[in-house]
Amino acid sequence: MSLLVVGTVAFDAIETPFGKTDKIIGGAATYIGLAASYFTSNLKLVSVIGSDFPQESIDLMEERGIDTEGLQVKQGEKSFFWSGKYHNDMNTRDTLATELNVLEHFDPLLPESYKDSEFVMLGNLTPSVQMRVLEQLTSKPKLVVMDTMNFWMDIALDDLKEVIRKVDVLTINDEEARQLSGEYSLVKAAKIIREMGPEYLVIKKGEHGALLFHKDRTFYSPALPLEEVFDPTGAGDTFAGGFIGFLASTEDLSFDNMKRGIIYGSAMASFCVEKFGTESLIGLSREDINSRVKQFAELVHFPQ
Amino acid sequence: MSLLVVGTVAFDAIETPFGKTDKIIGGAATYIGLAASYFTSNLKLVSVIGSDFPQESIDLMEERGIDTEGLQVKQGEKSFFWSGKYHNDMNTRDTLATELNVLEHFDPLLPESYKDSEFVMLGNLTPSVQMRVLEQLTSKPKLVVMDTMNFWMDIALDDLKEVIRKVDVLTINDEEARQLSGEYSLVKAAKIIREMGPEYLVIKKGEHGALLFHKDRTFYSPALPLEEVFDPTGAGDTFAGGFIGFLASTEDLSFDNMKRGIIYGSAMASFCVEKFGTESLIGLSREDINSRVKQFAELVHFPQ
Repeated sequence: MSLLVVGTVAFDAIETPFGKTDKIIGGAATYIGLAASYFTSNLKLVSVIGSDFPQESIDLMEERGIDTEGLQVKQGEKSFFWSGKYHNDMNTRDTLATELNVLEHFDPLLPESYKDSEFVMLGNLTPSVQMRVLEQLTSKPKLVVMDTMNFWMDIALDDLKEVIRKVDVLTINDEEARQLSGEYSLVKAAKIIREMGPEYLVIKKGEHGALLFHKDRTFYSPALPLEEVFDPTGAGDTFAGGFIGFLASTEDLSFDNMKRGIIYGSAMASFCVEKFGTESLIGLSREDINSRVKQFAELVHFPQ
Repeated sequence: MSLLVVGTVAFDAIETPFGKTDKIIGGAATYIGLAASYFTSNLKLVSVIGSDFPQESIDLMEERGIDTEGLQVKQGEKSFFWSGKYHNDMNTRDTLATELNVLEHFDPLLPESYKDSEFVMLGNLTPSVQMRVLEQLTSKPKLVVMDTMNFWMDIALDDLKEVIRKVDVLTINDEEARQLSGEYSLVKAAKIIREMGPEYLVIKKGEHGALLFHKDRTFYSPALPLEEVFDPTGAGDTFAGGFIGFLASTEDLSFDNMKRGIIYGSAMASFCVEKFGTESLIGLSREDINSRVKQFAELVHFPQ
């Protein structure tokens, strides 16, 4: 089924206790698209870049089956740039620079062939831009997944709530769930947030895994305990890409399959953090992915 | 099988965002003993209290099948007292008072009938006191589980390492595993700590669950997402009590059964935090416990 991905395609400069990168390819839609491309080849990208963005990176996306007709290139302008430094615990980071550049006036125009997409992934962006995407759809998608962050809760809460009302799945981290709901208990927070609109809430807890809430049901996926975590950048986006990519490929929205989606998302995220940037999302085999999913099953299985 | 429990029996005064207690019954051995008493009735307690400790609390332990012959009562002295205040996140706390009292000169003398115990739980105590217990055993136990904390890593590391060398299972939290090993990655930390002696390492992560490491195998148990967490005091001890109590009752030390032990321990801990102090560890039924274990299985199960 067709999967529409909207989000940033950008440059990142990352510093972790293990090393430092120059400007490398990043952005939410890049991670989402690459992760989802392992599950579905009917992938449509909506984003904006400047003329400084390397053609080879666009070629790479197209080789992975990502349709870039909706990728706007602004001649003479610069791509979005983010730079950050992770602390020793890898769970917290300082933003060193955020240069919006082309993102400042981004109007996400959907090519005609995108407008009947059946699965939609709204990567983290200004809520009004996310809304603009939904407004252009000509038929109701089977599933809309939305990612966002605390920044929009601080400065654009009303706009944010309007988008949240229209999506099926919201993915945020535990602190964001607490901020959005005003409740410390994640169980209580989930109830309140689901009353805002989404049938499903995914709470991402980084190295502590992820929770899926739906009606009175809860599913929990651990994060795989890894020898080395080199760079957490993009892990949440990669998780979302694996999740919705898997769902779009299986066309099954039962709760059991949603659970599987969470596990596939977690598996993709576990690859992501093992190398810098998007490096580990290139060249995986389906066997690599399946074998990692099996590790998740073994990690939590106990005979009753 | 006989289970020997050594640790504090004490008074606690607890403040959480949900309320405040006067002096209530607490202490590591109290939580361990009560939790373990749901699995085995062959329980032997070694601890020390002052004459200020209420007889009815000792009676309660005995009613739950806990042998208190090894509970020393120091006439005219006061019981160990700890007071703490939890922050809003319930994961961090300030210690307001620690009065060692009878604990200062505690010499854990084992009654003759305790010396051939087959399962031994060393609750958090001065490492040299834990060692004194091991030295009095006349036959090698089937399993020795040891709990400790960062405090002893700071002030008695050599003594601590000596005890660690002699135990089968060490239970510590994630920060303590990092401190003891000098490694941030818990996978690497587990390898280093297991080389110090214990075949098994349990890393407790509070609301984020627990990890069991053994050889090249890892098992993960989540914590149950709860509507309300009233008081985390004693959750780690309750976990340890459920874990070793279950193992002592089943007499099965296979890795599969160790996993079950971790889940039973997590289930007991999930009851513990729902009320103040030891309140929720009184009056549980076996059905309550089994139904909670089932919730753990459902929480992580996904069809492959």
